[in-house]
Amino acid sequence: MAKVYEFLANGFEDIEALAPVDILRRGGLEVVTVSITGSEYVESAHGVEVKADVWFADVESFDDADLLLLPGGMPGAANLDMHHELGQVLIDHCERGKLMGAICAAPLVLGRRGLLDGRRATCYPGFEQYLDGAEITHELVTEDGNIITGEGPAAAFEYGYRLLARFVPAEDVEALKEGMRYKHLMGK
Amino acid sequence: MAKVYEFLANGFEDIEALAPVDILRRGGLEVVTVSITGSEYVESAHGVEVKADVWFADVESFDDADLLLLPGGMPGAANLDMHHELGQVLIDHCERGKLMGAICAAPLVLGRRGLLDGRRATCYPGFEQYLDGAEITHELVTEDGNIITGEGPAAAFEYGYRLLARFVPAEDVEALKEGMRYKHLMGK
Repeated sequence: MAKVYEFLANGFEDIEALAPVDILRRGGLEVVTVSITGSEYVESAHGVEVKADVWFADVESFDDADLLLLPGGMPGAANLDMHHELGQVLIDHCERGKLMGAICAAPLVLGRRGLLDGRRATCYPGFEQYLDGAEITHELVTEDGNIITGEGPAAAFEYGYRLLARFVPAEDVEALKEGMRYKHLMGK
Repeated sequence: MAKVYEFLANGFEDIEALAPVDILRRGGLEVVTVSITGSEYVESAHGVEVKADVWFADVESFDDADLLLLPGGMPGAANLDMHHELGQVLIDHCERGKLMGAICAAPLVLGRRGLLDGRRATCYPGFEQYLDGAEITHELVTEDGNIITGEGPAAAFEYGYRLLARFVPAEDVEALKEGMRYKHLMGK
């Protein structure tokens, strides 16, 4: 079973953080939410207090990660960006070519570390300047090799399904889209 | 400012509960999440622990509610249905003609109390049998007077916007859809 860590800072965007967790857990992946605040408790951009599964300082190693996730929202993404140990985890993970997801403002965390240089990526409008060296697509979701980026809250479903599709058969993703009524939403 | 209470039971569907909170708070409404478990802590259908704003037993009266919300998910909706005091709050609220929202499996909580009798409503496929006397629309979102129902997780955005539109000008809802990139998702 693929292992996923999602990093939560105070000010994370509720939907961007929790829709992918919902989708990936429905798809059978092991998802661990990781607080980078001073405790296991994290407050969303819209005032929802969530207890993360683990606290960053309590995790010995993220080497077993198949996927790392960065939700957007402000100041959530800025808080992720300021966490230097997390930054090193992201660099090590990406340099090994392992899968990485960032949505909305969060691609800035990758961009400022040079991890999007020469890559196609999307982000929330206004954050393009931080995606150093990237070709900005302005798409809802962009995949370039091991990096998947999303544009904003309403991209969270599509972003979640694209991430899941890297680990499970396409027909399972289609069944999940049907079960979550996403196909109805999209008129299919 | 309109006041909203959302009731959270263990097993609530993550997106159906938190996307409307996100949207309504962005829209300026006062949203209070209410735990109906034995404490303020509630666990979602997909293992996310949320601290609700208040505990049901600590709220003296819900008479100031402009909108009551029931998220779906199982066993979340069944747990809501089994809470008799909550049932009475819903009956009193609906009988006064005040706005009520239920999504996915949660319309069953209204249906089993006769509150959907003669009304148009939608729900998650398979739960139609519990919507006593309702005309099932199979729509993503259905509005019939003071009752708004949604079909499932992917309906959560549209459901949230329709609820918000009862309290703020249409142009504010449109601006929010644009800001959350919902218009991009829907190809507009």
